[in-house]
Amino acid sequence: MTNALKIGVAGLGTVGSGVVQVLAANGDAIAERCGLPIHLSAVSARDRGKDRGIDVSGARWFDDAVAMAADPEVDLVVELIGGAEGVARSVVETALSRGASVVTANKALVAHHGTALARRAEAEGAALAYEAAVAGGIPVIKVLREGLSANRIERVHGILNGTCNYILSTMRESGREFGDVLAEAQELGYAEADPAFDIDGVDAAHKLAILTALAFGCEVDFEALHVEGIRGISALDMEYAEELGYRIKLLGIAERRDSGVVQRVHPCMIETTTPLAQVDGVFNAVATVGDFVDRIVAEGRGAGAGPTASSVVADIMDLARGARLPVFGVPAERLKRLPTLPMTAHVGAYYLRLMVVDRPGVIASIADVLRDEEISVEALLQRGRAPGEAVPMVIATHETTEAKLRRALKQISALETTLETPRVIRIESL
Amino acid sequence: MTNALKIGVAGLGTVGSGVVQVLAANGDAIAERCGLPIHLSAVSARDRGKDRGIDVSGARWFDDAVAMAADPEVDLVVELIGGAEGVARSVVETALSRGASVVTANKALVAHHGTALARRAEAEGAALAYEAAVAGGIPVIKVLREGLSANRIERVHGILNGTCNYILSTMRESGREFGDVLAEAQELGYAEADPAFDIDGVDAAHKLAILTALAFGCEVDFEALHVEGIRGISALDMEYAEELGYRIKLLGIAERRDSGVVQRVHPCMIETTTPLAQVDGVFNAVATVGDFVDRIVAEGRGAGAGPTASSVVADIMDLARGARLPVFGVPAERLKRLPTLPMTAHVGAYYLRLMVVDRPGVIASIADVLRDEEISVEALLQRGRAPGEAVPMVIATHETTEAKLRRALKQISALETTLETPRVIRIESL
Repeated sequence: MTNALKIGVAGLGTVGSGVVQVLAANGDAIAERCGLPIHLSAVSARDRGKDRGIDVSGARWFDDAVAMAADPEVDLVVELIGGAEGVARSVVETALSRGASVVTANKALVAHHGTALARRAEAEGAALAYEAAVAGGIPVIKVLREGLSANRIERVHGILNGTCNYILSTMRESGREFGDVLAEAQELGYAEADPAFDIDGVDAAHKLAILTALAFGCEVDFEALHVEGIRGISALDMEYAEELGYRIKLLGIAERRDSGVVQRVHPCMIETTTPLAQVDGVFNAVATVGDFVDRIVAEGRGAGAGPTASSVVADIMDLARGARLPVFGVPAERLKRLPTLPMTAHVGAYYLRLMVVDRPGVIASIADVLRDEEISVEALLQRGRAPGEAVPMVIATHETTEAKLRRALKQISALETTLETPRVIRIESL
Repeated sequence: MTNALKIGVAGLGTVGSGVVQVLAANGDAIAERCGLPIHLSAVSARDRGKDRGIDVSGARWFDDAVAMAADPEVDLVVELIGGAEGVARSVVETALSRGASVVTANKALVAHHGTALARRAEAEGAALAYEAAVAGGIPVIKVLREGLSANRIERVHGILNGTCNYILSTMRESGREFGDVLAEAQELGYAEADPAFDIDGVDAAHKLAILTALAFGCEVDFEALHVEGIRGISALDMEYAEELGYRIKLLGIAERRDSGVVQRVHPCMIETTTPLAQVDGVFNAVATVGDFVDRIVAEGRGAGAGPTASSVVADIMDLARGARLPVFGVPAERLKRLPTLPMTAHVGAYYLRLMVVDRPGVIASIADVLRDEEISVEALLQRGRAPGEAVPMVIATHETTEAKLRRALKQISALETTLETPRVIRIESL
């Protein structure tokens, strides 16, 4: 064994502490696999006095994470602070600027500044590794960039947010409403006190933006994503989904078309028998379709100290072993600018749930609108209550365009017999 | 772009032709990702005149694959001939001996000679890559060796043979018998004319032997594996499995224990809700459990030209990009010799199906034997036919040792009222 790889860890929260634990527990095996030991040379966090249950006494302490990133004694900087701007961004830029490689779990940073950071890293001969930024412990970055690299990737889609998947799974299993299950998830620590980032789809969108760049060799373009969260899903939708043979999942979907890419995060109905429909609870799963390999699905824990630290340390080990791949699989200056297609161009089937007055002629007036927009109906479910009361009416359409659907919805919403804003969930055959 | 990586492909069967097709279809993207083009410099196969639907006119033809492997103009040798001995082995040894790296899909070769070949490769500074040897298009070697390399691996288990999985899935769905479904699989090309290699578990065992070495950093020890195939599974067992809440799968299972490793391939009953129970048809799936990452499951096509070629070309690209990892994750001279524990030491639950005479006292005599061996019964299913006739009796046991179970079976088989050799399937909670 030659000299050690000296790493500096910025951020000692859940993931940072997990990284220290992995290195402590498996250091010998890691050194054997790498051909040299990984030495925790420096750490930085906000509160030096806090008891984190880890031993960092062998590492130099920095109150200033940016100063640590600039320290020439640190060979590799591990950024686990989080956030697209501020200290996290400065740490990464400082390290790369002096040619030091960076390992990060920061999905927001890579989603917002990935292209620029990749250019900077490659110009300086440094690496920027971010396995832990997407799907926690699942090595999906490695699978896409290396394992499936012989393929032209056609589609990547997945369950990228464990909080949403936990909520949706629990709603389905228990029949309870969204707000109720969210409150429970917060108590259990599966959802943040401010859950917006997860349940509005932003976290999944960060991850999808990264996967899109990697899959299609294009610049990261987070702003172009279409993002919808899961706040609008009700227990009633869960019931109808089951009746129609579907599960409701929040998916991130990236597809390559001749005219550009599709990048979208939204609730989907998928057939009960597809692999992703079976993935419940806090688990993540990513499916990749390549022209030769067909579909590969990887499933595992998408968050948590252990799984995320597993990916962070795997990145460190790759770099210790001498790996130096372009950040997004092809050199950053060759990343393409591919247009993201608008959702109005989306073609697919739809689930519509309307609340209507139960009286003669209601179905006919809705059917007229759909016919006029050339939307054909695959299934229609309506069960009566007392005449004159509000009843749910569910329509599953055949394939149509989102533009047509939106026009139809506008007209249906304007009908006097329509009592609430219609609920729309895209049906995906993946 | 600098000069090309010149490869020589030995064997132009399904996989070899697939590799040529991948390079032809995606050559530009591959060159961009690698930083240099992959050039098909030489090929070798038995019949030069055969129409394979591929263009190899740009490559030098060798009737003798070993001569091609020895050719100094070939930078990297791709061995797709197959078989643990003979030409395939000579090709690989010849290339490694001159320091040329080898990519192979040959599971038999790596399972039988992996340790020796790894030593030779590493002594010569060459690489030996074999992603395509296990689970076809699923990059499970990369996931284990790199993606999960920060973990101490506790268990690897999977559906490693698509032919068996197709037969078992079809038996379950159709209620048909093994022989009938095998004949159909042969017609469809999912099973060979001589199916022994697949259905007796040998192919899965080759793959498991490789995964074991990689997972636990030990020498490949194919001879130590316990192997059972699927010939004994009947439609009746499928029915009972369903009734008890299980699916029957042929699994390869490798586990690390304090005293050694467990390596076994045999039919298993697994709970219907576990991820692997959902994997039907010709698909493969591998689950890996690590101390920090917990369980990662990867699923995809385990055979066929496209998926297998995808893995072969990914290996070539890794080497083109400069990757040089030890063949089994740690240097070959540091691979441990770990004892494989005997099956008699196995602890688990069991499914037993007996054919017994339907008359008073039969259950009591069997229950006596089980009690004497301290085997406790979780479930007992018996449905009467006409008195005095043969009826199936199914027993699901609680956890016991295989040694006790075998003693009990011997006594049960000797009972006058037992009409056939009892069928035993291990119940696994994975």
